[in-house]
Parts: sequence; structure tokens; C-alpha cells
Amino acid sequence: MLQHRFFRKALLSSIAPLLLSGMLVAQITPVSASDHGHHKAHAKFNKAGELARPANFREWVFIGAPVTPKDMNNDKPAFPEFHYVYIDPVSWVHWKKTGEFRDGTMIAKELVSVGSKSSASGSGYFPGDYVGPVAVSVKDTKRFAKSSNWGYFVFGDDKAQSAATDESCVACHKTNAAKDMVFTQYWTVLRAASPKK
Amino acid sequence: MLQHRFFRKALLSSIAPLLLSGMLVAQITPVSASDHGHHKAHAKFNKAGELARPANFREWVFIGAPVTPKDMNNDKPAFPEFHYVYIDPVSWVHWKKTGEFRDGTMIAKELVSVGSKSSASGSGYFPGDYVGPVAVSVKDTKRFAKSSNWGYFVFGDDKAQSAATDESCVACHKTNAAKDMVFTQYWTVLRAASPKK
Repeated sequence: MLQHRFFRKALLSSIAPLLLSGMLVAQITPVSASDHGHHKAHAKFNKAGELARPANFREWVFIGAPVTPKDMNNDKPAFPEFHYVYIDPVSWVHWKKTGEFRDGTMIAKELVSVGSKSSASGSGYFPGDYVGPVAVSVKDTKRFAKSSNWGYFVFGDDKAQSAATDESCVACHKTNAAKDMVFTQYWTVLRAASPKK
Repeated sequence: MLQHRFFRKALLSSIAPLLLSGMLVAQITPVSASDHGHHKAHAKFNKAGELARPANFREWVFIGAPVTPKDMNNDKPAFPEFHYVYIDPVSWVHWKKTGEFRDGTMIAKELVSVGSKSSASGSGYFPGDYVGPVAVSVKDTKRFAKSSNWGYFVFGDDKAQSAATDESCVACHKTNAAKDMVFTQYWTVLRAASPKK
């Protein structure tokens, strides 16, 4: 069910976003997480309210990598299989200062298959190849006020994408995420960097 | 055995390095992976040949996260349990251009416990907290010529550390790593970014 919804969302396109207000300043190219001079927002929306696919998010700050393997989920995990999750570097700097997600925070989740289950370092799950779409969440208190301030987007090869109209992302994050719609309970990197210990 | 050696190395200190030649230019602070103007080496060695603990490696470019859980390794994995692995951003830029590890490449591995085995997204392994020392490998064709050009370091809370005199790191990487002493077979991020497909 979750998987079905996830991939269905990847097919959605050109649907008007929930809210068109609160245009963010465009800034897609990655900057150093230590570059405090760069405080422009990363999320870039076009006039139709679609989010531009974030460029170079693999160079953002990594926050964690759960794995939901096929062989532990009847061959059909909701998100197969490793989840590599990143936060944009400007919001990372803000998080380190405040322990909060600023307006404009972007979090990207990319999926990687399990490539093998044993290696020189023992038994376990070892990464294989990229699979499936890229999921991106954006905090925007004006644009996404009706969905707890976050919008959820799923990119296939699209250059821009509308927010998911399906409510499954919002509902799951609202019910299960530890802090401000984000699963900080799994993001060791964020917890360790927060000034709110 | 592997675990024993790993932690033993964390206790080593102030032992003269294998080679003192090839002093690298100091540059520890992180720079943007997209900042092509910054091509100084990151590895910083002191006069005794000890490597300075790399600062802010959690802001380097993430390359992969295998997991060797306790419950799949008789409670004693060599490296418990998630391995979060990063490459320094200057060497990442070089890798993207060439598909090779430049002299001065640093790769850091940090360990994270398994915090839980089920979540809203299914069954699997979900990250817990940081555990154990930080392992860092440095490519230096002069300094580490005798060990296939790479030196291996394990940091507890040390500010500087000598290269491991124990040969287990070198031996395992030499036998099992796919490319130039690096386990690229598990680093999806590196493979995808290499111009050598």
C-alpha cells in the first residue's frame, strides 16, 4: 500500500500546488555547510508552484541511512531498501545553531538496493545500486501551512514536481516522526549536532 | 579478532609513522565540494608524522552505509553496527573528474548502533547512537608507499594519531577492496559519480 502510493506519486505532475504564496529565493547550487555567509533558501519553486529538482543533493549533509531489506519485508518494503537521507547545508548550519528546522529546510531521501549480505567485515546488508525515485520534503510555513508546514515531493526524472496531493506522506510523518515532521529518532547526525541536548 | 585489533589500534599513540617524507599542506576546515578553487590537501600531519583528527568530517561527502548488526554476527561484529563512510570534498571533486583517488584522499568511517528493528516504514535496521572510534584512511604515495599507498588511523578522543602499525587494515583492504584499497563495490555514491563507467 505504502509502496503503491510512493510510486504513484512519482507519476504525478503539473498539478497546482497547495499554496502559491511564500515564494522562496532561488539557490540550488550547493554551498559549504561551513559557509555561514550563504543563508539563501535552497528550495526553488517555479510560477506554477512546482519544486525544482534539487541539484547535487548527494553533496548535502548526510543525516542517516536506515535499511528496510526486501528479505525482512516479504519482498515488498515500502521503500526498498537503504534510505540515504540528506539535509541541505544551509539548514544544517541553522540546525547546529538552533536545533530547529528553518523555513526552507529541504530533506532528500534516495533509495539504494541491497547488493550483498556478506563481506570481509561480516554478515549484514551492503549497498548495491540506486533504485527508484528521489523523495524531497520542504518546510515552508506559508506554502504548506495546511500540512503541518511541510510539503512532500517525489522525483523520477522530472526537473520540477508538484507537491504530492496524496496525504500518506503527511499522515505518516505527523504520526511517527519525533520532531517537526522529521524522523530525528533515526538521524543520529542531527541529534548529535543539536544544541538542544 | 578483527574487533580486537580495531580497538587496540585506538589505543596506540605517539609511535613514529612509517614514513616521514611527503609532508602535505595543511587544510582541515571543510570546503564546498563544488568549490573548485580549493585544491589543497586535507590531511594534516604534525612533525612527528601523526595525522590530525579531521574536523567536521560529518560534513564531507557521504559515500555509503553498510550495516553489520550484532544479531547477524553472534553479537560481535568487527565493526558494530552501521558504518557511515565519507570522502573529503576536495578528493570528491577529483574523483568526479577522474574516477581516481588523488594523493591526499581521506576517507572516514564512523560507527552507529542499531537503535531499532521496526518503524513506520517496515522491518529493518534503524540507526541509534554513535559508538566506538573513528577510522580514517589517507592516501599518500610517499608516506605510505610500503602499504599500497594508504595509511590507516583510528581515533578515540585523540587530537592526533599515528598510523596503525598493525597490518590488519592494510591486509584486508588489499585483499577485498575493489579499487585502489577502497571498497568501491559498496560505495554506490562513488560509482555513480565516476566518469569511468
